[in-house]
Amino acid sequence: MSASTRIVGLRDTDGSVLVGALTAGGREVAVLATLAEFWADPAPWLADPVTDQPVLPVGEVELVPPVLPGARVICIGLNYLKHVAEGSYAGEGVPPHPTLFARWPSSLTVSGTGIPVPSNEDGVDWEGEVVAWVGETLVDAAPERALAAVVGYSAFNDVTARRAQKLTSQWTLGKNADRSGVLGPLVPAAEVGDLRDGLTVETRVNGTVVQQGSTDEMVYTVGDTLALISHTLTLHPGDLLATGTPAGVGYSRTPPWLLRPGDVVEVEVERLGTLRNPIVSNSDRRST
Amino acid sequence: MSASTRIVGLRDTDGSVLVGALTAGGREVAVLATLAEFWADPAPWLADPVTDQPVLPVGEVELVPPVLPGARVICIGLNYLKHVAEGSYAGEGVPPHPTLFARWPSSLTVSGTGIPVPSNEDGVDWEGEVVAWVGETLVDAAPERALAAVVGYSAFNDVTARRAQKLTSQWTLGKNADRSGVLGPLVPAAEVGDLRDGLTVETRVNGTVVQQGSTDEMVYTVGDTLALISHTLTLHPGDLLATGTPAGVGYSRTPPWLLRPGDVVEVEVERLGTLRNPIVSNSDRRST
Repeated sequence: MSASTRIVGLRDTDGSVLVGALTAGGREVAVLATLAEFWADPAPWLADPVTDQPVLPVGEVELVPPVLPGARVICIGLNYLKHVAEGSYAGEGVPPHPTLFARWPSSLTVSGTGIPVPSNEDGVDWEGEVVAWVGETLVDAAPERALAAVVGYSAFNDVTARRAQKLTSQWTLGKNADRSGVLGPLVPAAEVGDLRDGLTVETRVNGTVVQQGSTDEMVYTVGDTLALISHTLTLHPGDLLATGTPAGVGYSRTPPWLLRPGDVVEVEVERLGTLRNPIVSNSDRRST
Repeated sequence: MSASTRIVGLRDTDGSVLVGALTAGGREVAVLATLAEFWADPAPWLADPVTDQPVLPVGEVELVPPVLPGARVICIGLNYLKHVAEGSYAGEGVPPHPTLFARWPSSLTVSGTGIPVPSNEDGVDWEGEVVAWVGETLVDAAPERALAAVVGYSAFNDVTARRAQKLTSQWTLGKNADRSGVLGPLVPAAEVGDLRDGLTVETRVNGTVVQQGSTDEMVYTVGDTLALISHTLTLHPGDLLATGTPAGVGYSRTPPWLLRPGDVVEVEVERLGTLRNPIVSNSDRRST
């Protein structure tokens, strides 16, 4: 494995998605396989992503998340103690189990894309975090087995439409706005090491640091959470777990601080890279 | 349009899903198109599903939901007054907006399939309901426009793993157990008429009626709910809205009544047909 494998998706001419590896310092992408081929058995591709396939300049391809359309994006809502303490659920203390909510893959996008503010929101909120990628089928798995099945990690910005999120008891709508889940390249687990060692997660708005946490602050580990999930539903290669955000989100500030068109939000995670997205207006939803 | 069009999915030899129409009283299926072809523009297929494609005996094909892998299954949690009154949220009254939660399409199955009880549940619970299928792209739609974009309806059993659902504030895990969302054939909207006219929704367990409601009891209409959703996320052809269940679920009874291996659960919706599924043990999760 090279010291800096970065797996991305790219749009093929027929609209389907291919999986590639960034090369030449991120300026080129080597095509590896179709999404289905890659996720059928991702470990060998990650161990040795060298390929005889074409290498393309990144500027000439449309990068997209390397996510199967039928994958599940399972998200932990409250996983850093200081974030629990700042939010709407503060009075209820740390939840006794990981609070899990759903994103559909159609809400995902990549660094660089404009994130629209829906017409009925005052803005959107940032949530920098880490995503873990499942690489094997898991049914009734123990935590150690579940963690061993994680083949990689990515930086993630779980951008949230707070008004929609808080309309009712269930957060789903506000967590699935168009182009609201910004997913970085997959970095093989072997390059990342143990999240318990503490990777720094930092979010910046127009250059100002608004979140700075460490993955060693997580209440629920990736292994424990995937094990719990696997007792209800069978996890498949290509499913994703978003591990929750540290303290510092915008809506709980006094006064609240939300992202508006013209702002630029960045999420930088140690060893996983940086996501950088401009915020755009709702009219951008209608035109694409 | 024939008087009894029923659209189903069937597994092709390469594992992909084709869309077909039941013929000969449900004993045969005429292949219409690939999933992508059908959902690119479903209305013409529904208006005239006659085809020169092969007709196959139903017994020789594997029927599956005709759902795009990347579709969103958006579900209303509390939409019948008597169901609100019987459940955990009774003290909070009718929610001021539709309570929306998510299913991933991988949780869906069809009538006839065995539904497993996860090893950490005492049983699973029934929820008979109606699903509406979105047939056009909707962004910031008005309710009338959103309702006009509905191309069909299906019977649905939103089988729920209650322990997983109630672990935390978010219901996602308990609403996505393996093979827990039983989806019937799509019936064109023109055959179904207006849900406000009142279609009877009946659920039976081992032949005993446990739910009997009417779609005219819904608090939030399909048009209003899809319009609300479309202001946050763009709806696409093939997305689904599960409209909620009437009173009579199992967990709120005294004593609670849950489905266990060996039970048979049926959901029958007027004009949409009947779903009939046996309940099986958790060992069935491991073997498939």
